[in-house]
Amino acid sequence: MAKKSMRKISNSTIHRLSIYYRALLGLEREGYETISSKELARREKLTPAQVRKDLSFFGSFGTRGLGYPVKELKARIGEILGLNKLWNVAMVGVGNIGSALVSYKEFAKQGFIVKLLFDNDQRKIGSNHKGIIINDIASIKQMLQEQEIQIVIVTVPAAAAQKVCDEVVEAGVKAIMNFAPVSLKVPDDVVLLNENMSIELEHLSFSLTNRNMVLSD
Amino acid sequence: MAKKSMRKISNSTIHRLSIYYRALLGLEREGYETISSKELARREKLTPAQVRKDLSFFGSFGTRGLGYPVKELKARIGEILGLNKLWNVAMVGVGNIGSALVSYKEFAKQGFIVKLLFDNDQRKIGSNHKGIIINDIASIKQMLQEQEIQIVIVTVPAAAAQKVCDEVVEAGVKAIMNFAPVSLKVPDDVVLLNENMSIELEHLSFSLTNRNMVLSD
Repeated sequence: MAKKSMRKISNSTIHRLSIYYRALLGLEREGYETISSKELARREKLTPAQVRKDLSFFGSFGTRGLGYPVKELKARIGEILGLNKLWNVAMVGVGNIGSALVSYKEFAKQGFIVKLLFDNDQRKIGSNHKGIIINDIASIKQMLQEQEIQIVIVTVPAAAAQKVCDEVVEAGVKAIMNFAPVSLKVPDDVVLLNENMSIELEHLSFSLTNRNMVLSD
Repeated sequence: MAKKSMRKISNSTIHRLSIYYRALLGLEREGYETISSKELARREKLTPAQVRKDLSFFGSFGTRGLGYPVKELKARIGEILGLNKLWNVAMVGVGNIGSALVSYKEFAKQGFIVKLLFDNDQRKIGSNHKGIIINDIASIKQMLQEQEIQIVIVTVPAAAAQKVCDEVVEAGVKAIMNFAPVSLKVPDDVVLLNENMSIELEHLSFSLTNRNMVLSD
């Protein structure tokens, strides 16, 4: 089975790679040429062992005693995160959240280009939303394929989300970010990220309720 | 030191508690009285061992052979997550994201009540935004204290975020959710959650770039 040759990586590790990438961007701007695992750990409130473990996972970067070369490490992590290319993104549902995300300037900076918008509201279809025409959701499958969309962000109401998700999967898209407050089902080869704002807030209410607990990563 | 009596819990475990809570809500609606760790695991694509380990952390819930009582387990997890009370929430920055979050109906359902809005834009201050008056950010410290706000959501631009964060901390707030794309510094007794949408998207570009990797939790 193919699984045997696969390597496991945790969501937390991927998240930390993004954190390292941002830290290295800053260090580069500040003029650093090298950085030790100790200093990188200090800045991001991690342990040096954690930093070394994370980075060694992707090959040997650092030199003992000299630390990591900032520019090379940044480039390598950017490559690992897929930030050295442009990604075609489509957004389904141009309501409050969808609209806020279209305006999110960081996306384009990181190479995530919102190319298509979809909605089912006849009053919105055909109108220009911040420079992008809103398309009829009825044409979603064909348009996702034509425009070679790789990532779809779903911000439709919960009741409509699974149907939208199925069409996106049928169009061959392998990465979906879901903001609808509902569990979606996707095939094993599709990566689904659920962005549930209530769950995030529950993290805070948990912490306030259980102040004797220490959060580990 | 107080730390000695503290118990460690991972962010992933808290996240799974929220997932279990939602699954149990659904099971209750479907009329289930008990649920096995196996079935709960199957529904949420986890292992039964993981489910048992997570739930045992908070005391013994289940009965061998009978499974967990749905209603009691839901109530207990809700209590652990702090969902059996109301939380006073304030939002700083009524731009695109802030505005989208105010409209997010799930928040109130889970007991998160947005009581105050703040902005520094003179054109917005004093106006009514979806039933809530937008206050001048200059009065934030006093108003957070007066209204006994427990959770603050920060959606101001990156350059303004640390200053806002400092004032929120000075007001005595212990839980902050930050949407500004910048690392904020808070004292150890304040819980800070960073919601960086680009980092989330990087998760997807990572997965698309490294399709030979298996994501573990």
